[in-house]
Amino acid sequence: MKPGRVSLVGAGPGDPELLTLRAVRRLAEADLVLYDALVDRRLLELAPRARRFQVGKRAGRPSIRQETIHALILRAARRGQQVVRLKGGDPFLFGRGGEELAAMARAGVACEYVPGVSSALAAPGLAGVPVTHRGVARAVLVVTAVPEEPWRALLAHVAPEGLTVVMLMALERRRAIAHHLLGLGWSPDWPVAVVVAASTPREHVATLTLADLAHHDLPAACAGEAGLLVIGRVVDVREELAGLGERELLREHGT
Amino acid sequence: MKPGRVSLVGAGPGDPELLTLRAVRRLAEADLVLYDALVDRRLLELAPRARRFQVGKRAGRPSIRQETIHALILRAARRGQQVVRLKGGDPFLFGRGGEELAAMARAGVACEYVPGVSSALAAPGLAGVPVTHRGVARAVLVVTAVPEEPWRALLAHVAPEGLTVVMLMALERRRAIAHHLLGLGWSPDWPVAVVVAASTPREHVATLTLADLAHHDLPAACAGEAGLLVIGRVVDVREELAGLGERELLREHGT
Repeated sequence: MKPGRVSLVGAGPGDPELLTLRAVRRLAEADLVLYDALVDRRLLELAPRARRFQVGKRAGRPSIRQETIHALILRAARRGQQVVRLKGGDPFLFGRGGEELAAMARAGVACEYVPGVSSALAAPGLAGVPVTHRGVARAVLVVTAVPEEPWRALLAHVAPEGLTVVMLMALERRRAIAHHLLGLGWSPDWPVAVVVAASTPREHVATLTLADLAHHDLPAACAGEAGLLVIGRVVDVREELAGLGERELLREHGT
Repeated sequence: MKPGRVSLVGAGPGDPELLTLRAVRRLAEADLVLYDALVDRRLLELAPRARRFQVGKRAGRPSIRQETIHALILRAARRGQQVVRLKGGDPFLFGRGGEELAAMARAGVACEYVPGVSSALAAPGLAGVPVTHRGVARAVLVVTAVPEEPWRALLAHVAPEGLTVVMLMALERRRAIAHHLLGLGWSPDWPVAVVVAASTPREHVATLTLADLAHHDLPAACAGEAGLLVIGRVVDVREELAGLGERELLREHGT
């Protein structure tokens, strides 16, 4: 019997053109694709042979247990199937990919890691915000807003100057985050970008300040979307890159 | 005349299969490719129509001025050419991509950003080290070792627990980095991974401790290679994923 293969594949931010060649190849050969809730549905069309199941968690909804996901993968792999476990962005950046790979290792089933374009870097970039920029930011801190304690402790100790903070899964807690940073003495004028649905047709970018984030609602286009916060002076670079009226040109070329 | 196009393209860590579909398409259509020194030469074969020039800086060697790079790109774009500016990893993570994009914007030439798989995340992952892992690390700090002051100031304030530090361009300064962290009270046993030439045939991984990093030589396979340091408890997850035995000791790698 042909041996099975398990591939833990990064799906990138959403646009199918931002998949890696290896990811495309694995999807094309797949018998089974287990994908997370936030994975763009366009990517599934690249796996026409495969049975495809959403198994990911989504806040506030019941979801399949992690152990069940492991069991589904192992059963298929042991039957000689090509299994793709598809996760948004990169599987190892807040994707629980390590846990799934460890479960495979414990079961004696080899599993490969196919890195993906991480939304933590690409979403700001596609919004015109480079996460590092000479003379502006020399370091990037990537953190999730959930659970609460780690980001509170971490952000209490870093200084804002020279640092870009990218906060994933942060839109719901944006007010608490802003109040926390303001309480630590960060400037109310400190720049923030909100990026939702990067690289998809619903992409929306809003640039604001910490004070705005604490006290104002987000644009309606952000409602119900997964998104991230970029906190740092690099947000101001966006205007420089877009230039006078260049932003539209920039967009036209992105297609 | 057909309009020119400038694409700032992330080359990923090295393996051509880790390019995005869009990067492959831009390379195939390119008339001119300007690539950095660390870009894997295999990628250039994907641009058979293009004139190809290395323009990137390499420590200790004379290199083309940034302004000259901008001028080359602009001249070609204004002649209607398809220009690819190819940078290792992602162009916006320590790639000076923002500077080049700003120069294009000032000149009124549209430029698109094509995100790439960042070595900062993928190199650890390919080495079996997930940068985040439940119960182990909830945040990732990406920083370069050059210049010296930013990383010294930044690392003086973060606590090691729950954090993964990825340091790029860090191999030459590894002793200074280790001594700095030990001086701040980080444990001599704190885990470190050295990853060089990730996703290439010369890839090499060594796992060690902060004390090893301060006092021992790196394995011979690391000599002359670009590499990064991963500092944090996620390094220990590698054993779990690979089913390796004892952590490899640095001296076993030396010859």
